[in-house]
Amino acid sequence: MTARKSLDELASLTGGRVQGDGGAVITGILPVEEARPGDIAFIAGKRQLKLLKDCRASALIVKDGEFAEGSFPAGVNLLLVKNPYLAFAKCLEVLRPQSAKEPGIHERAVVHPGAAIGKAVSIQACAVIEEGAVVGDRAVIYPGAYVARGAVIGEDAVIYSGVTVREDCIIGKRVIIHSNSVIGSDGFGYARDGAKYYKIPQTGVVRIEDDVEIGACCAVDRATLGETVIGRGTKIDNLVQIAHNVKVGQDTVIVAQVGVAGSATIGSRVQIGGQAGIAGHIELGDEAMIGAQAGVAGDVPKGSVMSGYPAIPHGDWLRASTVFTKLPEMKKKLAELEKLIREIEGSKKEP
Amino acid sequence: MTARKSLDELASLTGGRVQGDGGAVITGILPVEEARPGDIAFIAGKRQLKLLKDCRASALIVKDGEFAEGSFPAGVNLLLVKNPYLAFAKCLEVLRPQSAKEPGIHERAVVHPGAAIGKAVSIQACAVIEEGAVVGDRAVIYPGAYVARGAVIGEDAVIYSGVTVREDCIIGKRVIIHSNSVIGSDGFGYARDGAKYYKIPQTGVVRIEDDVEIGACCAVDRATLGETVIGRGTKIDNLVQIAHNVKVGQDTVIVAQVGVAGSATIGSRVQIGGQAGIAGHIELGDEAMIGAQAGVAGDVPKGSVMSGYPAIPHGDWLRASTVFTKLPEMKKKLAELEKLIREIEGSKKEP
Amino acid sequence: MTARKSLDELASLTGGRVQGDGGAVITGILPVEEARPGDIAFIAGKRQLKLLKDCRASALIVKDGEFAEGSFPAGVNLLLVKNPYLAFAKCLEVLRPQSAKEPGIHERAVVHPGAAIGKAVSIQACAVIEEGAVVGDRAVIYPGAYVARGAVIGEDAVIYSGVTVREDCIIGKRVIIHSNSVIGSDGFGYARDGAKYYKIPQTGVVRIEDDVEIGACCAVDRATLGETVIGRGTKIDNLVQIAHNVKVGQDTVIVAQVGVAGSATIGSRVQIGGQAGIAGHIELGDEAMIGAQAGVAGDVPKGSVMSGYPAIPHGDWLRASTVFTKLPEMKKKLAELEKLIREIEGSKKEP
Repeated sequence: MTARKSLDELASLTGGRVQGDGGAVITGILPVEEARPGDIAFIAGKRQLKLLKDCRASALIVKDGEFAEGSFPAGVNLLLVKNPYLAFAKCLEVLRPQSAKEPGIHERAVVHPGAAIGKAVSIQACAVIEEGAVVGDRAVIYPGAYVARGAVIGEDAVIYSGVTVREDCIIGKRVIIHSNSVIGSDGFGYARDGAKYYKIPQTGVVRIEDDVEIGACCAVDRATLGETVIGRGTKIDNLVQIAHNVKVGQDTVIVAQVGVAGSATIGSRVQIGGQAGIAGHIELGDEAMIGAQAGVAGDVPKGSVMSGYPAIPHGDWLRASTVFTKLPEMKKKLAELEKLIREIEGSKKEP
Repeated sequence: MTARKSLDELASLTGGRVQGDGGAVITGILPVEEARPGDIAFIAGKRQLKLLKDCRASALIVKDGEFAEGSFPAGVNLLLVKNPYLAFAKCLEVLRPQSAKEPGIHERAVVHPGAAIGKAVSIQACAVIEEGAVVGDRAVIYPGAYVARGAVIGEDAVIYSGVTVREDCIIGKRVIIHSNSVIGSDGFGYARDGAKYYKIPQTGVVRIEDDVEIGACCAVDRATLGETVIGRGTKIDNLVQIAHNVKVGQDTVIVAQVGVAGSATIGSRVQIGGQAGIAGHIELGDEAMIGAQAGVAGDVPKGSVMSGYPAIPHGDWLRASTVFTKLPEMKKKLAELEKLIREIEGSKKEP
Repeated sequence: MTARKSLDELASLTGGRVQGDGGAVITGILPVEEARPGDIAFIAGKRQLKLLKDCRASALIVKDGEFAEGSFPAGVNLLLVKNPYLAFAKCLEVLRPQSAKEPGIHERAVVHPGAAIGKAVSIQACAVIEEGAVVGDRAVIYPGAYVARGAVIGEDAVIYSGVTVREDCIIGKRVIIHSNSVIGSDGFGYARDGAKYYKIPQTGVVRIEDDVEIGACCAVDRATLGETVIGRGTKIDNLVQIAHNVKVGQDTVIVAQVGVAGSATIGSRVQIGGQAGIAGHIELGDEAMIGAQAGVAGDVPKGSVMSGYPAIPHGDWLRASTVFTKLPEMKKKLAELEKLIREIEGSKKEP
């Protein structure tokens, strides 16, 4: 789909101001290097200024006040904004509108008569909605998704193909769940019975609050008792594991392939880097930042930045990691010094 | 669903004994902090005794002989058992019975006439069962699951939504496979042909023995020749990778996001922590324990406890990890000592 | 299915030569230890010669020129080839032919009339093909797979059960995608808006070139703008994460559970070990090799071999890792030496 917007319209959309021709017509959005006349492009920072030499874009999104006059080629129009990345997102929305699914229930969808289906929903082929499930107004359920008995899908939620939402789990408004993720699989809980394991029924649910986005191929386990919770606005990447009874706060970011073990509590506005592991029953304070591949085995205070395995303060880890590569020479040096000292000691005793 | 059991009935179910009113009616089970009259709660250990001050539960599951008299509030009934966690599991089963799927083949399921379907099975909407597949008595196949040609699903097995069981794979009795896991995908095997890779057909199968549970979004690859085997009673968490020709023993526990490379042999009663990696063609002895995020590159003797990357004995790893954070000061100290020694040496030579 | 081939036919197939009876009839292929008369087996290297004592195979695939005369039992026929592993793959193909899916569109498949469907395709039950999608000749779409609007599936591609190919993504010829992988999920991109995250529309696509194979439960995200690309002949194992705007070259191998962050560029003929992580916006040169579980945070030159976290040259990492376990004794030694030096220093000052 294509769109036509004047630069003035984009300024109004993004709360920015135009320097140049506000009537310029913008029909596309591309990286600076690829932009052609008619396109708007996004300058992420000063490093990108060198790309402007051959710039053919009709307009540039730039941070207001960041660049000296004369930084830009003559004749290029500027959209000056406070938050260029946010402006870029909003321009993308209108310049590359994504085709919405038309409302309607596909004849090959399987919707139990005892499910409560809202207005203007889209339920597509081979989606299965069980008895007692609720699908909120304008929600979209893609092909092959499964909404089990008693599960609730919030208004305007988007459940992509192949997603499973197990029994009684609650998905908030405007939540997006990408393909093949599983919400509400059984927690990994067993009682030992001699050498064998006896399954502990996982009778709780998962509750995902409003405005959460969950990537593809994630697993969020239901609680043993009570709830596993993903807080409002939190964003989770692909292939992430959230175990039973975990509580995640609001506006937290969890990057791909992270694993969070059972009953851990993650605060709000936390950031967890890719492939990191969070042990069970621990607590990460608000605004904590966990480095990629870190292994966090204990509580992390609010605002701490941690890396490594086991995780330690990020600065300490960086310094220790730098020395790590020098271990062989340190070992050699230590042996040399020992030899020297023994010699000195020996010579002292001689006379 | 709700249930009503007398405390005497729960004692009989769990092999425990009642201290207090055996006729007390129990209708729910909740954590101590949340329990109300009518509920039974579970005391996991002495640390939880402090929660009892405001306890409103009608009964507590406690380990027989662990607590001194007077540890518990007057009037609270006790269910004294040998294994409280196991008793908790059994009480959960009866107090929160999970609604079973009614037997039957949904009209929107796709069952090949050449499949052998047992008694009292449940095959749900959009599940697809191919020619030559076998579905054992009372097995449950959830929506969108796929049982390929010649695959065998054991009696009482539960195959959740979106699971694929590929051609000729064998799933034992009472096995549970959670949503979107894949059993029998091709092993990752190629012959090099110059710079290119030539696919080696993966002609073997996966055999999953009785009483295994496999989490959501796992991949268990079929063997090149022969079988990939998951032994009886083994429990596998979410997002786990089991490569081709791996053999896993009995009652082994594999936590989320573990990866086991091709042709590795894992013993029985082994425990592998989350995100650990096991190299190909190596052997983990029975009862071995592998720490979370460990990378195991060589054989591990029976009963060994290993951590780190590369994995070393856990105690050694703990001690070395503690020193790791002190590397920068060790390096500095080493330089200081060297300077001192050079001075001493120099002063010796002077006179 | 069974097959009958003469040894001469297998020699012709593999470009090898027969030593012994070229007319010997081969009907199966098994490991040396399990092979019976009628089987051909594969000798991977000299280590396996000891298995030959009780060998009952009718023929052996061996590397031409590698073994001294008399290495093999009298009477066993040899298929001498330049590349035994490749010959094994080719023999497997003919001796264990895998049953192809018959062409046809299942009556329970859901194919939009506005999709373009090639000749001799197989589209199976509960697969969903949307408007504007293209399915190339002889492609096979397994049950429950979803091909979204405008997506293109190349000729002879195999899309296994439960795979999602999102809007406008392009899958090359002969590509194989294993069950429950997701191609074209949204990239993980947000603009910060105060403490909240604002979704950046992911308007690009994924392009997968010819002859790529992708394992089960992988996620390959679509680009924000432009393309995420997987180059010709690249092989990707299970549970791998490829983020938005990543470019992977040709004939690269990515082992299970690897994560590649956004906008990284991976060269051709690269090998990445299991569970490794590649940071965003970095570049891995052609033929680079990355060890299992490594964490690569910066550019890697062509042909480099890297391990560890943060990744360093593999040799350095091996040496440092060996010393790592000795850290506690090094620390102790350092303290001892310091004490000695202080004593020496003190004694010097005394008189």
